[in-house]
Amino acid sequence: MTDRLPPGSTIGILGGGQLGRMLSMAAARLGYRCHVYEPGPAPAADVAAERTRAPYEDADALAAFAEACDLVTFEFENVPAAALDDLAARVPLYPCRSALETSQDRLVEKSFLRDLGLATARFAPVTEAADLGAALAETGTPAILKTRRFGYDGKGQARVADIAEARAALPAFGGAPLIAEETVAFSSEISVIAARGRTGEVAAYDPGENVHEDGILATTTIPANIPNRLRMDAVLIASRILTALDYVGVMGVELFVTADGLLVNEIAPRVHNSGHWTQAGCAVDQFEQHIRAIAGWPLGDGTRHADVTMENLVGDAVHRAPDLAAEPGVQIHLYGKSEARPGRKMGHVNRVKPLSTA
Amino acid sequence: MTDRLPPGSTIGILGGGQLGRMLSMAAARLGYRCHVYEPGPAPAADVAAERTRAPYEDADALAAFAEACDLVTFEFENVPAAALDDLAARVPLYPCRSALETSQDRLVEKSFLRDLGLATARFAPVTEAADLGAALAETGTPAILKTRRFGYDGKGQARVADIAEARAALPAFGGAPLIAEETVAFSSEISVIAARGRTGEVAAYDPGENVHEDGILATTTIPANIPNRLRMDAVLIASRILTALDYVGVMGVELFVTADGLLVNEIAPRVHNSGHWTQAGCAVDQFEQHIRAIAGWPLGDGTRHADVTMENLVGDAVHRAPDLAAEPGVQIHLYGKSEARPGRKMGHVNRVKPLSTA
Repeated sequence: MTDRLPPGSTIGILGGGQLGRMLSMAAARLGYRCHVYEPGPAPAADVAAERTRAPYEDADALAAFAEACDLVTFEFENVPAAALDDLAARVPLYPCRSALETSQDRLVEKSFLRDLGLATARFAPVTEAADLGAALAETGTPAILKTRRFGYDGKGQARVADIAEARAALPAFGGAPLIAEETVAFSSEISVIAARGRTGEVAAYDPGENVHEDGILATTTIPANIPNRLRMDAVLIASRILTALDYVGVMGVELFVTADGLLVNEIAPRVHNSGHWTQAGCAVDQFEQHIRAIAGWPLGDGTRHADVTMENLVGDAVHRAPDLAAEPGVQIHLYGKSEARPGRKMGHVNRVKPLSTA
Repeated sequence: MTDRLPPGSTIGILGGGQLGRMLSMAAARLGYRCHVYEPGPAPAADVAAERTRAPYEDADALAAFAEACDLVTFEFENVPAAALDDLAARVPLYPCRSALETSQDRLVEKSFLRDLGLATARFAPVTEAADLGAALAETGTPAILKTRRFGYDGKGQARVADIAEARAALPAFGGAPLIAEETVAFSSEISVIAARGRTGEVAAYDPGENVHEDGILATTTIPANIPNRLRMDAVLIASRILTALDYVGVMGVELFVTADGLLVNEIAPRVHNSGHWTQAGCAVDQFEQHIRAIAGWPLGDGTRHADVTMENLVGDAVHRAPDLAAEPGVQIHLYGKSEARPGRKMGHVNRVKPLSTA
């Protein structure tokens, strides 16, 4: 057993966006204060006790932040490695650095999953144009070229039909190391939100079925329209990943449903957009679950007491919020961002219905 | 129709306790910033964008607060009248002053309810010892003497068996104006959490059944174990009260279930402890509902998608939170108060189960 973080302790959160905002409110519900570290505008700061506005390269600010916090976590996986080194030397950091590093690089991530014996799309590294032939021989065509690092919401990707298109696509990546991936023929995309506590216990929520638009998550529906066998497989896969990484906290695991079963697409070492439905469908939502895990509380068991469809409000769609609020069973979550830029996640709604399945 | 408060606006909250804290988080979910005004320690400030620490008698601080807010509400009904006057002259204030004044004085409140044609316990004013005879003739004995103002959680009350006991009890009230009330033979206590919007629409949640210990709410259970007819009566009574007061916001209405039907016990012009179950059982909880009402959003319809029992963690009971968290379906809400004094509400838990009734 580990010691529970005492009530009144301060949890530091790297990143001040909507995930940090919802983490901060969950931490408050468990009696903690939050301190948000964010170089830019920080919607999370409006619901946090403290806030540091400084670059991730500011060693003094990081040191003061570490000093002010009893434990640190993060809302996004692209925190610079040096900042993490600085912090990890001074204050407990969850999830651990190694999990973060695994997920920061698509090639490392896919290799890790393959080494675990899990099915993934075929993949191969592409460092320069000369690698493309062998890479596409491995993946088949059409293939998807992706930057190994810093891609999200469909950014840093190109779908290529053949090697000629692949060569033509290369310059736009500006020399960044790439991975080529097989184009998977999937019937649907699902994700599992799972948590692992400090003492190794794992809990998972029911898999949700995701629909993307323009590379951005549009909706997650619970229950997913998949056979029970796959529901179980998905949870077991997530559990193996968390345990192999000695992970502490909540992770999102995205999977493709194919004729041959499930393929792991990618993992996100943090609370995940496709887990927002838990706010309306579970006693313990993914944000509280993450705080429970990193602060040494018992995990919620992931039980769902309602059906939910989560819909993202992207860009101008946020202006639909008042109309949506007039519909029965709709829960609103706005992120407090001032400008509704295209492609920007501005909020989400959860549509709740009584439980359809036991 | 009224204008909706624009996103990014600041809502002022008078009072920085747990109700203000949960209101602040709900306001954030609707895209608002909160500014908490509280003379003492303020758990709500940890999840609010701004905080003023000043007495309610500080006219300059109140003026600056009004200037900083686009709308003001409150978490408790005993805000001094002068402070409300100051604020109401400068910034929209919801619920309105008259509703607050009605509920601040038990005699005014009971008279208002009786004038509405609603059943209450028999009551009579007691200004001095000479009033006791006529008062107890009206109420019968045993009776309950209560201060007309500033009573809560069973404070400022004395149960008296006869006029001799009533005379003996009087000095402890220190000359405060009192009300004598009939001792009601009730089978259970229920409460309705209802909301009224700026344009007069009313929405109510299912009545919950309350159990008190030592004058403090211990548990609220939904659904209440009462006939459907009384469920309907309770909601209709609440609706009449809100409409008669031209009320805007959430109100708690406490009722006694007796052999002759429902008696209105008291009203609370704010979110209410007996409505905390809505956090786990409804898409729109009472805190979001209050913000929706005062900020001109459509009201949630009060639909419940799960059964819930809310249990308060009073005093040292807060130390049970980690054990409770290990139970399936338990949602934790701690208030961030530093000292677990006896009788102090430190947090609550919601135990969630799938819906038992349609």
